Amino acid sequence: MRVLGVDPGLTRCGVGVVDGVAGRPLTMRGVGVVRTPADAELGHRLVAIEQGIEEWLEEHRPEVLAVERVFSQHNVRTVMGTAQASAVAMLCASRRGIPVALHTPSEVKAAVTGSGRADKAQVGAMVTRLLRLDAPPRPADAADALALAICHIWRAPAQSRLQQAVARNRLEQAVAKHASKGRTA
Amino acid sequence: MRVLGVDPGLTRCGVGVVDGVAGRPLTMRGVGVVRTPADAELGHRLVAIEQGIEEWLEEHRPEVLAVERVFSQHNVRTVMGTAQASAVAMLCASRRGIPVALHTPSEVKAAVTGSGRADKAQVGAMVTRLLRLDAPPRPADAADALALAICHIWRAPAQSRLQQAVARNRLEQAVAKHASKGRTA
Repeated sequence: MRVLGVDPGLTRCGVGVVDGVAGRPLTMRGVGVVRTPADAELGHRLVAIEQGIEEWLEEHRPEVLAVERVFSQHNVRTVMGTAQASAVAMLCASRRGIPVALHTPSEVKAAVTGSGRADKAQVGAMVTRLLRLDAPPRPADAADALALAICHIWRAPAQSRLQQAVARNRLEQAVAKHASKGRTA
Repeated sequence: MRVLGVDPGLTRCGVGVVDGVAGRPLTMRGVGVVRTPADAELGHRLVAIEQGIEEWLEEHRPEVLAVERVFSQHNVRTVMGTAQASAVAMLCASRRGIPVALHTPSEVKAAVTGSGRADKAQVGAMVTRLLRLDAPPRPADAADALALAICHIWRAPAQSRLQQAVARNRLEQAVAKHASKGRTA
């Protein structure tokens, strides 16, 4: 599975591509940052992010885009930019029919370090080790994007089993409901 | 001036086109709502909003897109969807080189009703009167989109004078700084 991880932000949007399956060594295919100038107009910044993400999708052809699930309890100003940048990334992927997966920051940290409250340095260290890199990717947004991709590769089998179980359960309930309706009629 | 007002939202994105200049009667050219199903995947909803906004831009060719400036002190869940939907609208306009103007909800209310704390009904009533409609546009998101467009038409002259004054002031400061540097050298 090839995953493009995106750590969304208006000023720095971290991007990282990882190949792999759960239980096997992972391979980094690319890492970088899409930057937009803080003094540019918001609309122009969103266009620049769209172009940047499009280039990464075009070059690496990922099967899934994994993006951070944004919560608004964070810093008020930052969270709006994060939501807007992530919307552009999700739009680019969905337009191409690439599934979008969302993971919370604590899910990502827990996946790569074992603790949902790990700090940036710990995440960077584990990303470096798991991808067998010489040094932690800089800036931290780039390392976070790789961590998102790794998190998705490791969580995807469990997630899809869960989704199948939920779907099966809904189907069984629907069948049971239909059967009981049949009896009362 | 032709303005497309957008009241952003994932479930209902209000859109309204108004022609006019400050101090003259205004004309509504179109009003509607871009809807996306609440149970669809977020990426697909963003694609549907992009398609909807593109259709409005294509049909009405506005000179400006006026969109609500989103604040995160609002309801936590709603604000993320609002930020994401507005990002898509701004992206569509900026991609076409159409300037994007942001107005806060209280600026819009104050522009059309005289009070920044007016309620939905008051805004709807004034939009109806100002555009000489037979009834308030439904749903409220559609009326809000028209109010945004009206607000922009009325505020634009003052805003552009302010921007020019700020630019002139910056230039004068830069010239003064340069001159004083010249003296100390």
